[in-house]
Amino acid sequence: MPAKGAHVDVIVGGGIVGLSIAWRLARSGRPVTVVDPAPASGASYAAAGMLAPVSEVTYTETPLLRLGMASLRRWPSFAAELAEDAGLTGNAGLTRNSGPTGDAEPTGDAGSPHGGLGAIGDGARLGLDLRADGTLDVAFGADDLATLDELATYMEKLGLPVERLTGRECRRLEPMLAPSVRGGLLAPEDAWVDPRRVTAALLAALDRLHVPLVRARAAGLLRDRDGSVAGGSVAGDRVVGGRVVGVRLEPPPGGPEPPSEIRAERVVLAAGAWSGELAEVPVRPIKGQIMRLRSPQPLLSRCVRGTVHGSYVYLVPRGDGELVVGATQEELGFDTRVTAGGLYELLRDARELVPGVTELEVADVVAGLRPGTPDNVPIIGPSGTPGLDLATGHYRGGVLLAPLTAALMVGDLGGEEGELAALCSPGRFQEIS
Amino acid sequence: MPAKGAHVDVIVGGGIVGLSIAWRLARSGRPVTVVDPAPASGASYAAAGMLAPVSEVTYTETPLLRLGMASLRRWPSFAAELAEDAGLTGNAGLTRNSGPTGDAEPTGDAGSPHGGLGAIGDGARLGLDLRADGTLDVAFGADDLATLDELATYMEKLGLPVERLTGRECRRLEPMLAPSVRGGLLAPEDAWVDPRRVTAALLAALDRLHVPLVRARAAGLLRDRDGSVAGGSVAGDRVVGGRVVGVRLEPPPGGPEPPSEIRAERVVLAAGAWSGELAEVPVRPIKGQIMRLRSPQPLLSRCVRGTVHGSYVYLVPRGDGELVVGATQEELGFDTRVTAGGLYELLRDARELVPGVTELEVADVVAGLRPGTPDNVPIIGPSGTPGLDLATGHYRGGVLLAPLTAALMVGDLGGEEGELAALCSPGRFQEIS
Repeated sequence: MPAKGAHVDVIVGGGIVGLSIAWRLARSGRPVTVVDPAPASGASYAAAGMLAPVSEVTYTETPLLRLGMASLRRWPSFAAELAEDAGLTGNAGLTRNSGPTGDAEPTGDAGSPHGGLGAIGDGARLGLDLRADGTLDVAFGADDLATLDELATYMEKLGLPVERLTGRECRRLEPMLAPSVRGGLLAPEDAWVDPRRVTAALLAALDRLHVPLVRARAAGLLRDRDGSVAGGSVAGDRVVGGRVVGVRLEPPPGGPEPPSEIRAERVVLAAGAWSGELAEVPVRPIKGQIMRLRSPQPLLSRCVRGTVHGSYVYLVPRGDGELVVGATQEELGFDTRVTAGGLYELLRDARELVPGVTELEVADVVAGLRPGTPDNVPIIGPSGTPGLDLATGHYRGGVLLAPLTAALMVGDLGGEEGELAALCSPGRFQEIS
Repeated sequence: MPAKGAHVDVIVGGGIVGLSIAWRLARSGRPVTVVDPAPASGASYAAAGMLAPVSEVTYTETPLLRLGMASLRRWPSFAAELAEDAGLTGNAGLTRNSGPTGDAEPTGDAGSPHGGLGAIGDGARLGLDLRADGTLDVAFGADDLATLDELATYMEKLGLPVERLTGRECRRLEPMLAPSVRGGLLAPEDAWVDPRRVTAALLAALDRLHVPLVRARAAGLLRDRDGSVAGGSVAGDRVVGGRVVGVRLEPPPGGPEPPSEIRAERVVLAAGAWSGELAEVPVRPIKGQIMRLRSPQPLLSRCVRGTVHGSYVYLVPRGDGELVVGATQEELGFDTRVTAGGLYELLRDARELVPGVTELEVADVVAGLRPGTPDNVPIIGPSGTPGLDLATGHYRGGVLLAPLTAALMVGDLGGEEGELAALCSPGRFQEIS
């Protein structure tokens, strides 16, 4: 039973996930409102934007692999439609390098037998800086190399597109790699995008679609207090079981006075690491420090990652020469300080991988909070409470999984995607209700 | 012969040196104007503020030691008078720790037999964060220790106040030091100050003394073109020999329109690394990258320095918990980029000295340009050109030497300081005229 007088969906959270859902809903003609005190400033602002389900594979996380592969396939059309709706000039489609020469050229029909990205238009890497030149995972020591080799065997068993490379082959692809690189694993269909450009485009598209953006903090959920829902209660605000009929708002200090509440037919909780402050969801903040370097010429032509001194580092090149170096993983609660230790690790490991980074200017260092879940898989779908849907817990995959998450929330799944909803269903956690 | 209609001294450069000269001149009743497009933003903004003539001693630079010792003695009264003129609350005098306990207590009569700081009032470390708790130079390896031992012998020969310490004694003074520290050298009378507070106080004092501050770039020197000075010439703006009678100004882009020139009886060139753009002085920019960390509690109670992996690093604690980590030395021209390599070195070396820094927040990283000279000694005094005085080339000693430099320019030297002027005289360089 919808709340009286409210036909709107309220999206709590203006990160890449919340904005993507709002945009797809608005595009389908649905009235929608976004609530966030500072849109596009959290984990989406910090994120490097790797769209790398293959190179991120682990032995225990095949559900995440399936979700990631499905969302990666959606990225080219998602990006193209977004660029169109945002009014970006040029084409926001996707390019792929033709090979080790590094010359970017449009791919007309790169249909992949491995289920990777399908046919992608003749776009250049404009607008959203979406690129699909692959990810190269490199190893230094013999142990690292053996680990990488094991992983390759596992990936091949899963039918994933990977290529084993010698150290020399790695350096032929990426001449700036350290001479001490002994070998590597190429995931040629992995891609990446600039999340800051994506959220800016989403905000522009929402503006053009006249979607209200309320810059305030959602301080609580409004519950139906007339007991009309079985199992509901009139005892208080946080009571479980009463239908959710909107959100209470808290104005930013010194900001303009927003409405004190918004009533909604449906509330979609997409508040990332802060989701647990509004509902009972098993999401915790996992801090990541990340650095952006500025380079006159690009040092790399694809994403490069590796394990250095036991810690994992990746380098993501942007079209404008920016090089993103990420990221620490720290369980420190809601702590977003950039620390000497975090910065030191990033710099040390990046130098080890690509010594030439020492010459680059440090443009930006930030810390973001990833929304972690107990099984590293996001929580997407109806909660146990009528009127409340969840789209949170994306951990390291918010950028990759945004198109699929939006499709799940809009109910726009393709035939072969039908069973994906079950993989990330909130119902797998008892505490959600 | 003074320029017609101009009785003012124009100080070109609003760093700690230029502002100090302007303040002392204005205080003595002299009309003065300061010209700088962005006062207090260059090397003075980057500087750590070590007042450490003893621990900075090298085998070849005894002139610099004498200048530094003389200026250090002037710092307490300079600071006290500055705090008064700037209207700072509290007392900007100087404190010294009573010993290894680290309790700061006022020193009433700390007259030193070594010629260090004389009697200093009962001030707390307020206002300018001026402190005199000494500098501890530490060594890790046997070679470092031997080098430090040699230096101690040399310092003792010079009659300087230094104490040799074991590793254990070092850690008793500074418990956060790395366990691997093998020994150290304490210069108990070395001091430090917060240069950002000093320049802010100087600007406030100048404001209260109604000294005009022209926010524009001095683009050239005005020369007397009537040939009245022997050896002068009317040929052009940069010609050597014609009396300097003022400065030409260039407005900042988009800023308010300043006067296009200021006529002066005397121009004092205190433009730091940029001095060579206005006159023939052998000054070159030496880049330094420096980092500020934020600590809830102070990690150190005195300045700590050491040589790590062949590069020299120092840590300067502030009263508010800030910890300054400096600094790189790079000959790269007018380059003020913060680089991955520079930041990496600072973090690596600071960690080695005091491992606990890894937990601290990175508050600030900047790069400044020190004005270097061929002999590392500043250039202070009349140039060969009538109407043009020089106060530049302070290299790493601008903060330490500001009080002495101002005294030299105002003609306020004590009896035993008479020969100091000759040490930094511009006449020692042939190219200055």
